[in-house]
Amino acid sequence: MNYDRQQLLSEIVQPAQTKIVLLVMDGIGDIPKNGETPLQKANTPNFDKLAKDSDLGQTIPVLHGVTPGSGPGHLALFGYDPVKYQIGRGILEALGSNVDVEEKDIVARANFATVKNGIIVDRRAGRPSTEESGKVVQKLSSLIKEIDGVKITFYPGKEHRFVVKLTAEGLDDKITDADPQKEGKPILLTQPLTAEAKKTSEIVNKLMNQIADVLKDEERMNFALIRGFSKYPKLPQFPEVYKLKAAAIATYPMYRGIAKLVGMDVIETGSTIQEEMQTLKSVWGSYDFFYFHVKKTDSYGEDGDFDSKVHVIEEVDSVLPEIISLNPDVLAITGDHSTPAALKSHSWHPVPFMLWSKYTRKGLSKAFDEYECAKGTLGTFYAVDAMSIILAHALRLEKYGA
Amino acid sequence: MNYDRQQLLSEIVQPAQTKIVLLVMDGIGDIPKNGETPLQKANTPNFDKLAKDSDLGQTIPVLHGVTPGSGPGHLALFGYDPVKYQIGRGILEALGSNVDVEEKDIVARANFATVKNGIIVDRRAGRPSTEESGKVVQKLSSLIKEIDGVKITFYPGKEHRFVVKLTAEGLDDKITDADPQKEGKPILLTQPLTAEAKKTSEIVNKLMNQIADVLKDEERMNFALIRGFSKYPKLPQFPEVYKLKAAAIATYPMYRGIAKLVGMDVIETGSTIQEEMQTLKSVWGSYDFFYFHVKKTDSYGEDGDFDSKVHVIEEVDSVLPEIISLNPDVLAITGDHSTPAALKSHSWHPVPFMLWSKYTRKGLSKAFDEYECAKGTLGTFYAVDAMSIILAHALRLEKYGA
Repeated sequence: MNYDRQQLLSEIVQPAQTKIVLLVMDGIGDIPKNGETPLQKANTPNFDKLAKDSDLGQTIPVLHGVTPGSGPGHLALFGYDPVKYQIGRGILEALGSNVDVEEKDIVARANFATVKNGIIVDRRAGRPSTEESGKVVQKLSSLIKEIDGVKITFYPGKEHRFVVKLTAEGLDDKITDADPQKEGKPILLTQPLTAEAKKTSEIVNKLMNQIADVLKDEERMNFALIRGFSKYPKLPQFPEVYKLKAAAIATYPMYRGIAKLVGMDVIETGSTIQEEMQTLKSVWGSYDFFYFHVKKTDSYGEDGDFDSKVHVIEEVDSVLPEIISLNPDVLAITGDHSTPAALKSHSWHPVPFMLWSKYTRKGLSKAFDEYECAKGTLGTFYAVDAMSIILAHALRLEKYGA
Repeated sequence: MNYDRQQLLSEIVQPAQTKIVLLVMDGIGDIPKNGETPLQKANTPNFDKLAKDSDLGQTIPVLHGVTPGSGPGHLALFGYDPVKYQIGRGILEALGSNVDVEEKDIVARANFATVKNGIIVDRRAGRPSTEESGKVVQKLSSLIKEIDGVKITFYPGKEHRFVVKLTAEGLDDKITDADPQKEGKPILLTQPLTAEAKKTSEIVNKLMNQIADVLKDEERMNFALIRGFSKYPKLPQFPEVYKLKAAAIATYPMYRGIAKLVGMDVIETGSTIQEEMQTLKSVWGSYDFFYFHVKKTDSYGEDGDFDSKVHVIEEVDSVLPEIISLNPDVLAITGDHSTPAALKSHSWHPVPFMLWSKYTRKGLSKAFDEYECAKGTLGTFYAVDAMSIILAHALRLEKYGA
């Protein structure tokens, strides 16, 4: 369709008192091992009971056959065309790490790396502990503060990762990664992609040299790879587009970052599913949309650990009654993409989607898994359409046209 | 997808002798009550028999989750992108009431209303009889004929409703409704939405004053609310786009209006389903596409009258053999949207679709209801794609590309 879904929705969205939970089990979709997917193998009495009263379907996150990163996968679920809105991973990492980003700033993700004779021998510098790398970030912070009038700020991250922020007027993020992406390759400086980005590119390359100089006596963390340069992207905001006051409950920086970008309040939470559940309860009265993110279904998929993925699904199943006891008007359960354990990576497979509300058509499904979803009442649809289906069941959309 | 479906179709449409019936049961889709939808509950031996030889699917009228008005719902079924073509209700009402509308005209819907001390106390003036209100329309017609060179014409409608037409060069329909939409509110004049519409807005406001003056001694019908100002929209025409000579059999002005807009001949008919059936027979030899509209499935849905909706479905089922005995090449049975009795309104739920022809794949379905359609051979598709599926089964589309 040749038009902006969010534009159309914003014209028919109406305020309501209804409450919506969007439970995202990251990478939930899978392919079978010994004839069963993790969703089938898991013992999930609560999902199965819910399925009988729900509408099921399967989503295509970006395009059929296209494997999405977490950014596009989530943006689509939130109703943002993931091809129109392309978000740099730098900004997601920065926002999720509570780095304040202003409009003029450029942020980027950085790795400590080990370099020998100008060749990158370890892209993660032997995976230092977060404590070790934090000290080196402090060293950088104390010795590099400004280059040619551009303020430089470093933020520590997990293990080998950190974030770099450049602050000045007139910076441009259209520059290439200062990272050859592979070990055994020589150091790579950044290059401008447009004439306007020339100055920024020069500053970053000077920064690379200064970092190398500061770190030259470090044994392993003697260099840094910097990539994903990005400015703060302007996205339509949940309160404006959907008239929703939205809370995000997520434990990983990346997902907290995406939620912040779309105008959700990111709630502090503990990292287990039970702790996330307690966080949901604690803010239930203050919001009308709750994005509840479970990371470990994806992590175990990426590890190829089929059995642990099954156990995480069972853990989520066990908190489902607590969510339902909060009495949401709509409960949507899905993933941002599939992460089949056999592939040890994200994949293009359609993603299971289940929606429960008073107004579902229901009647067709007996369990929540890939196959029941493939033949569910909602059919196969683009993930970008999930929000309008959710809003409709929350009675938050007026009729379109006379 | 970023292309014009109708443009593509018009390039591959070929003439044929085949005959097509599009039977629209308005608002047919529903959600279950005591475990059954009206389509499931109804005793429909003829639908069920047809289903075994048909391809079933479910349509999305506008976008997933979006509840369509009757205009967008029908335009989509006729193959017109309902977001690209947004039609004012004024023009639909006017066309359906046999008002001749030229390119320079502006038409609007009007209600007689009761006003006290500048406050609207009854938006329908106590629902006068059609005869009563017709007399008042006559009074307006005899006393208001022209304002500042703009010709004013009034057309009587049902009960409190009538239609106003403004005729002059240079009129513009971008003006707000002269109707606060709610009782207990003060009279509202129209305002221009663009600079070009200023003159039209002034004329309409003068008209409002003159109407108030003419009606000041009426007991109940002492004012008029005017809304839905619209020009005649130019839509691609059925004979050109589809090479179809099309007849519309519909009893309500709205649907007759839409049919006229897309280039169908609107046939005079009685208002029962049996009378519509007789009308179909009487024009069978003269056309190759027949739009057959059944209103009452929607009306009873809007009333929340589940059982009466069931009975209307059974009544349609009973005329099905007569349609089939005419030997159509394609018989498509669907709705323009869902109207669940439990919601008493149009809804966003996918709409059952069944297509019978010699060339269906069939073999999957045993009855015509929401669930059989959800898992049918055609899957879930946008209603705007229905026409190409219909044309294909009527062997009216050439191969695309070499």
